[in-house]
Amino acid sequence: MDEHAHLFALLLAGGKGTRFWPLSREDHPKQLLKLFSERTLVEETYDRIRPLVPNERILVATSLGLAPRLMSLFPDIPRENFIIEPVARNTAPCIAVAANVVHQRDPDGIVAVLPSDHFVSDVAGFLDIMTCAELHASRGKIVTLGITPTHPETGYGYIRFGEFEEDLAHPEARHRSRSIQAFVEKPDHATAVSYLKAGRYLWNSGLFIFRTDVMLEKVRTHLPSLADGVEALAALGTAAPESDEVLKVWSDMPSISVDYGVMEKAEGLVVIPASFGWSDVGTWRALTAFPTDENENFVFGRVLAVDSQQNVLYSSAGLLATLGIQNMVVVVTRGAVLVCPADRTQDVKQLVEELKNRNQTEYL
Amino acid sequence: MDEHAHLFALLLAGGKGTRFWPLSREDHPKQLLKLFSERTLVEETYDRIRPLVPNERILVATSLGLAPRLMSLFPDIPRENFIIEPVARNTAPCIAVAANVVHQRDPDGIVAVLPSDHFVSDVAGFLDIMTCAELHASRGKIVTLGITPTHPETGYGYIRFGEFEEDLAHPEARHRSRSIQAFVEKPDHATAVSYLKAGRYLWNSGLFIFRTDVMLEKVRTHLPSLADGVEALAALGTAAPESDEVLKVWSDMPSISVDYGVMEKAEGLVVIPASFGWSDVGTWRALTAFPTDENENFVFGRVLAVDSQQNVLYSSAGLLATLGIQNMVVVVTRGAVLVCPADRTQDVKQLVEELKNRNQTEYL
Repeated sequence: MDEHAHLFALLLAGGKGTRFWPLSREDHPKQLLKLFSERTLVEETYDRIRPLVPNERILVATSLGLAPRLMSLFPDIPRENFIIEPVARNTAPCIAVAANVVHQRDPDGIVAVLPSDHFVSDVAGFLDIMTCAELHASRGKIVTLGITPTHPETGYGYIRFGEFEEDLAHPEARHRSRSIQAFVEKPDHATAVSYLKAGRYLWNSGLFIFRTDVMLEKVRTHLPSLADGVEALAALGTAAPESDEVLKVWSDMPSISVDYGVMEKAEGLVVIPASFGWSDVGTWRALTAFPTDENENFVFGRVLAVDSQQNVLYSSAGLLATLGIQNMVVVVTRGAVLVCPADRTQDVKQLVEELKNRNQTEYL
Repeated sequence: MDEHAHLFALLLAGGKGTRFWPLSREDHPKQLLKLFSERTLVEETYDRIRPLVPNERILVATSLGLAPRLMSLFPDIPRENFIIEPVARNTAPCIAVAANVVHQRDPDGIVAVLPSDHFVSDVAGFLDIMTCAELHASRGKIVTLGITPTHPETGYGYIRFGEFEEDLAHPEARHRSRSIQAFVEKPDHATAVSYLKAGRYLWNSGLFIFRTDVMLEKVRTHLPSLADGVEALAALGTAAPESDEVLKVWSDMPSISVDYGVMEKAEGLVVIPASFGWSDVGTWRALTAFPTDENENFVFGRVLAVDSQQNVLYSSAGLLATLGIQNMVVVVTRGAVLVCPADRTQDVKQLVEELKNRNQTEYL
């Protein structure tokens, strides 16, 4: 018997954004980038969970614009598993819709929600935690994965945890869950340092897992208009996502994140502290945490780095040669090159804005 | 009557080198680069002297490999004005051969020798000095142009000058010449500073002008084997530069620079101190002396520089976007990108060597 028989995976692959410009473009967001291998981030996300879940139980939530690309990346995932949002409505609606889709197929279904543009270095560790989280979820908890901080990161939200959840200390659960005292916003540096010292804070990874009946009940309680929308959509059956009636239902749903709309309000959430080399890869700079050469450079593509240390050196078009540079980000793509210090990568959006102002839209 | 009726120009366009890698390649040396305009450096050199000299009196010395490219750049220069070296023999041989070619056409000929890969910002000033230098040369002197130093440059040879040459103080000579006490090698920084303070040193620009009979006599005196070669070549008439007999004559000529072989040994040389915004553009860094935007960046091609100062930003292939960088050199070409601090550009040859070692010859 398959111990994961009720497990479904939901890849959140609708995100936009140009923080990885010039590699990411308006029609080519981060989840479609190849940063760590010849596989895109969304493919790596798929590869990571695939040992636990067959294609028939992998769902992909995305936008109308990105759906064709994702369908061609994943020809083995059934078409009906693509949850296509005709308008962007943040994370709560697509997760609730996915929960309902799964619930119709398997009333005991469990859904693991996986952002499709994150990095995990220790895949075995990830699967181990996920297996335990599934066990906790099967007992009716919404289980979040909280990453044990390795440095005072200001780019993540944090979770303050409480006591062990003793009643969930199942003998098979190698990783015990803890109660959640609070979700806290991205801190400033001093606060992040205090969180690190306190030892009771975890990074909010955005990875969580729940039984569909539990999630649908939370949505009904905390976001009743969304619960109505989910039912209305189900009533439309197989209507095309670009049809007027489907568009109307999605347009009427509240645009809200699952964190804000459900998680932070709900009772009975738990967190499992985890350490599997995770990053949300929020900016080019994040790649400095994953050096690939002996000089602590993150290197991708054809790169010749002489006397260069702790840089992010990425080329998808020809040779990138560097000499005597440190703590820089250099990205070479066909048609556009970016050069900036690693500690300025959060300002790449300034560049993108400036290109918009100059109407140089061919680079956006 | 044309006051420059006996003036010929010799463009030295046979140089090799990869200090401007990745823009310069083995088969695409510096004189063929576009650094300051949509014209190559050799075309800018031609444009600069052209007001004084018609095409019929412009000669081009170059290699077999580069000749076809140069002939197509200068279709109006007669084919017989191209002095093509089948083997590289430094500057003395091609200058002596050119002097003899001119001497056969005009026994009163005067030759201005112009390196083809330098930069001049004040073209009117250059022509003014050149006109005066021609006057001095017509009286039988070999006249060098010495650039008044603007900073303690360690990349140039210097000329220590002596007294005014009173007998050449012709009323039309707005710029008086001085005797030369010594040619001195590239100095270290402390020495360069002392030269600047002393006020009696000029940069050796490599620009000089002479009457053909004077130069040929100096060659006969100081480099008799070269003088023999020049005569042997003349005896071969219009034989093709790649023919065995021409190759043999060139191969037998001494490989020596005109500075070392003639200038530093000859009597009767003078120097005219000049200031016309000159640079030999020895490395990418040299371009920082010629900023083109309000933030002291040297910018060429499609560049977006946000919060970036005092950089060399060159793109011949797509958009180069920079954010928060200072004193860097970034060069974007189709197929290869270079990033290094401005004060490391003299080490670009290290990169080129490393590419050779790795057998990545497609980038050389």
